[in-house]
Amino acid sequence: MRGLHLTADLYQCRCEARWLTEPRQLGQWSRQAAEAVGLAVEHELSCAGPGGGASAALLLPGSHVLLHTSPGDRGVLVDVCLTHAQDDLAVRARELMQALVQRFQPEWTEQRSLDRGESA
Amino acid sequence: MRGLHLTADLYQCRCEARWLTEPRQLGQWSRQAAEAVGLAVEHELSCAGPGGGASAALLLPGSHVLLHTSPGDRGVLVDVCLTHAQDDLAVRARELMQALVQRFQPEWTEQRSLDRGESA
Repeated sequence: MRGLHLTADLYQCRCEARWLTEPRQLGQWSRQAAEAVGLAVEHELSCAGPGGGASAALLLPGSHVLLHTSPGDRGVLVDVCLTHAQDDLAVRARELMQALVQRFQPEWTEQRSLDRGESA
Repeated sequence: MRGLHLTADLYQCRCEARWLTEPRQLGQWSRQAAEAVGLAVEHELSCAGPGGGASAALLLPGSHVLLHTSPGDRGVLVDVCLTHAQDDLAVRARELMQALVQRFQPEWTEQRSLDRGESA
């Protein structure tokens, strides 16, 4: 199993507040964003987070997308983890991460790129 | 928002094959493991993965647990991401990761510890 796992920690997001507080909207929109880059989402979940925030999860075979928001400090954590032999896996992962980050209009971000399962 | 995100890539797992191939069993067991360290799981999801594998997701307010298995090379990817002011967040995250890893009896692992949202 090989995969690319992108993480982004977003700070001082300037988006409309509802993107940080409404779990279902966050789940539905992130599903649309994933489908827009050609990913087949199997399950979409959301729940309220601590401090009036929202959490949303997309589960795909061998892959996942996760978002957690924190309205109090206008922060968001985003994970895009895609595995298995999709030819353009890295391109899709980066396109999706870019779309997710842009939605929240952060003042700045801290992003990481992790190779997963490389040594199998 | 502050959190601790642990990742583990497991190789050459020597567990019974069903732990790598049965999504519902994987989901139910990982939920039990999370609850055993005192986490309140909001949603549990699972689906078949590529190559006869299994994927399972637990969503908690502000936190998540993810597993993807690959029976072909006996590999597993595990994520435990816990955020927000639980006093013993790091202890719980590490206990849970240890329990999840032990289940699969890997020959060896590659593990990372990421501080998430530290700079807010």
